[in-house]
Amino acid sequence: MVMIFQIAEEVSRLLELKAQLGAVEDGTGPHKFTLKTPKGTRDYGPAQMAIRADVFNKIISVFKRHGAETIDTPIFELKEVLTGKYGEDSKLIYDLADQGGEFLSLRYDLTVPFARYLAMNKISNIKRYHIAKVYRRDNPAMMRGRYREFYQCDFDIAGQYDPMIPDVECVRVVSEILTSLNIGDFVIKVNHRQLLDGLFEACGVPSDKFRTVCSSVDKLDKSPWEEVRSEMVNEKGLAPSVADRIGEYVRLTGKVDLVEQLLLDEFLVAESKSARDGLEAMKLFLKYCTLYGLQDQVSFDLSLARGLDYYTGIIYEAVLLRESIGVGSIAGGGRYDNLVGMFDPKHKNVPCVGVSIGVERVFSVLEARIISSKTKVRTTEVEVYVASAQKNLLEDRMQLCKELWDADIKAEHSYKHNPKLLAQLQYCEEMGIPLAAILGESELARGVVKLRQVATRQEIEVQRETVAEAVRDLLNKINEQS
Amino acid sequence: MVMIFQIAEEVSRLLELKAQLGAVEDGTGPHKFTLKTPKGTRDYGPAQMAIRADVFNKIISVFKRHGAETIDTPIFELKEVLTGKYGEDSKLIYDLADQGGEFLSLRYDLTVPFARYLAMNKISNIKRYHIAKVYRRDNPAMMRGRYREFYQCDFDIAGQYDPMIPDVECVRVVSEILTSLNIGDFVIKVNHRQLLDGLFEACGVPSDKFRTVCSSVDKLDKSPWEEVRSEMVNEKGLAPSVADRIGEYVRLTGKVDLVEQLLLDEFLVAESKSARDGLEAMKLFLKYCTLYGLQDQVSFDLSLARGLDYYTGIIYEAVLLRESIGVGSIAGGGRYDNLVGMFDPKHKNVPCVGVSIGVERVFSVLEARIISSKTKVRTTEVEVYVASAQKNLLEDRMQLCKELWDADIKAEHSYKHNPKLLAQLQYCEEMGIPLAAILGESELARGVVKLRQVATRQEIEVQRETVAEAVRDLLNKINEQS
Repeated sequence: MVMIFQIAEEVSRLLELKAQLGAVEDGTGPHKFTLKTPKGTRDYGPAQMAIRADVFNKIISVFKRHGAETIDTPIFELKEVLTGKYGEDSKLIYDLADQGGEFLSLRYDLTVPFARYLAMNKISNIKRYHIAKVYRRDNPAMMRGRYREFYQCDFDIAGQYDPMIPDVECVRVVSEILTSLNIGDFVIKVNHRQLLDGLFEACGVPSDKFRTVCSSVDKLDKSPWEEVRSEMVNEKGLAPSVADRIGEYVRLTGKVDLVEQLLLDEFLVAESKSARDGLEAMKLFLKYCTLYGLQDQVSFDLSLARGLDYYTGIIYEAVLLRESIGVGSIAGGGRYDNLVGMFDPKHKNVPCVGVSIGVERVFSVLEARIISSKTKVRTTEVEVYVASAQKNLLEDRMQLCKELWDADIKAEHSYKHNPKLLAQLQYCEEMGIPLAAILGESELARGVVKLRQVATRQEIEVQRETVAEAVRDLLNKINEQS
Repeated sequence: MVMIFQIAEEVSRLLELKAQLGAVEDGTGPHKFTLKTPKGTRDYGPAQMAIRADVFNKIISVFKRHGAETIDTPIFELKEVLTGKYGEDSKLIYDLADQGGEFLSLRYDLTVPFARYLAMNKISNIKRYHIAKVYRRDNPAMMRGRYREFYQCDFDIAGQYDPMIPDVECVRVVSEILTSLNIGDFVIKVNHRQLLDGLFEACGVPSDKFRTVCSSVDKLDKSPWEEVRSEMVNEKGLAPSVADRIGEYVRLTGKVDLVEQLLLDEFLVAESKSARDGLEAMKLFLKYCTLYGLQDQVSFDLSLARGLDYYTGIIYEAVLLRESIGVGSIAGGGRYDNLVGMFDPKHKNVPCVGVSIGVERVFSVLEARIISSKTKVRTTEVEVYVASAQKNLLEDRMQLCKELWDADIKAEHSYKHNPKLLAQLQYCEEMGIPLAAILGESELARGVVKLRQVATRQEIEVQRETVAEAVRDLLNKINEQS
């Protein structure tokens, strides 16, 4: 496993280098192209797929525990569907060639297709998850787990409901997922768009600068306050006194006591109804968090702003507390009440709240952990390998495999006529197969077959007619012991 | 469920019509595009996804029973990777727009990316499955379950092994899958490319016409012999006597006795070593089929030719015997020993044999069956719905849900503050949720909760502290009964 990743990284590095050098070819054949995957993409080999399947299974069982349905949408959309949804990131959208017919683009996220799906099918409430690939023509740092083709893993609740009830369930879902993935301690930062807007209003930011100041605030997780302040004043043109007033608030983090404190803050609540409403919403949200047992994981953080324009209410972001690879953000989301209306001919809105799990980050963390722990990942689930001790037992192996498959036992045997016993047993050890059924001439003559536990090398003899049952019993015994 | 499909079909038909009429818009808003998915694609709603997940799970468990690993490749490849692999179907390949950088195309199948993966990573043996979407700019008959974006579901064995051992396992895999999907009686037709070539040789077809005559023969499953003969003579320029001689053979079907008969056919085996070798290979193949219990399902059929150029040995195709929707082919494959070599700089080959399951056909058959049987498909797995009998019990519902989730029980409750009890119980019936935990003021005062079986309307009272355990016990009891 370790080797697989190291080789994959090395191959990918070398291929990039080769492409840069101008794809020097050996010139012997008709195929003079560089043998590689497109820039920013990669193949997933069996070991990576096994890790991925395990992560998806854990995530999906949390989604199902919360009663979510799943949907799928095409990998491409009419180009117009994506237009005007991603601001300046729109340049990162992949377009399809014009081969006659409609103008198409690869999906950039799963949220916009979800909104299009709701509007098109006139669905006014649904709780759904969607796990699928999205595409961005970014210049990604691939060694840090960022690619041009990558998975998103979204959970959203659409519908006109009472305040904060679905919002807090999304946070509960994030918490259950991160706990079940066991990728380390985390905190879920929460804030509210209305409170941020109200804060900017109270501090005297002109309303046309709310979004750009928001994006400055969003940098506080990576940059110190001095830098952010300087950007606000020198690049965004805020008065220094306005920036300083913002600075007094956006560095605050806390729990419900901070909300109470801010509700008593004359400056804030007197100046802005929006801030007051945002704080009352946050108070309700934090109360529900406690009911869902999330009080220790959730942190009210006034610096959390999040980039996307379409958020309208609660926003959140989960952060790993000790992470070696890059930044710690591992999930994020929020409420977006106006996106579906952008697709509806009558602009009928469907309020939505949702969260996206950064599964590619999860894979990176788990792959790094597997490499450093030198663990071996099983890539198949074979339960018993049917081996032969001498030549000319192919038909006996085939017959036994048939019986095992008929009994729903995962089994395989060599595709060679006369494989060596040692090679067969080594294969079992390499692949982590727990049992080998060894056919031998003398044993068959006596009507028996040897069953060998690969790890302990213990062998027992079982009746040829009852091999399937004996395998099942032995597997149960091994599973109980481990 | 029935309604969902009927509505989906109707919506899709209307949208097509609307697009044809020139996308008349209401002109009230800024979004003047037709709200639809790209031509030849569709969304999958929750009910369709539930059917699809069930099909994939059954197929994957067969693949795993045979010890297969899985891989994934990017949705697009360098354009050159696909060039020259699909003959005249190449015009159906989707290209990406030139936005600077590499020329890319969406994958057309999973076989060519698999061959590219093997050559690029110098993998000389693997048994892998790959379930993923592929793209063809076809003009598909969508109502018959054919789309421009569709799933393929491939199982392949790559490696230098002894004759027919992996080949027959592929057929066994097809047989297990079709049996497990329970979609009706089927037959797996088999033939051998070498035998076909030898037959053409013996009948006097010039070798440069082998492929084109092959494609005429391939039409025998849909057209009578007279039409195929006429195409051979009038379009492909065969002498009538040559066509007649071919006709004597390609209408033969049988079992191993037919192989024996043909091996004694002086004309065929004296004229062509290729035919002789093909027949010997087929004999071995059929012997192994019997060992794997496939003798009743496999039919040696000299008319089976299959379109793709890259097959080099055994070819097969599974056909449903009674199917209402279109043609009955539901799986197909064969041996292709030279494809990987097309990617290797030194033209090193990796022999491969594989099979592709026509999952989209499977979905069509199962969806049609569900519609006609008026069965209801569950789209969630919720085990218990937490309901309230009076107002102001939201926090009690939330608290109980938390306890159920903590106990890994799939639970949900209304996102409304004060939902009506009747509405809550109706929701349980619609969604097929087996249990409702009903919170009431007087019950809570007595420290109990009502547990209601939704189907039978039977109610019991359980202690508030032990609701999770009681739910688990009751679910086990219900499952045992059903």
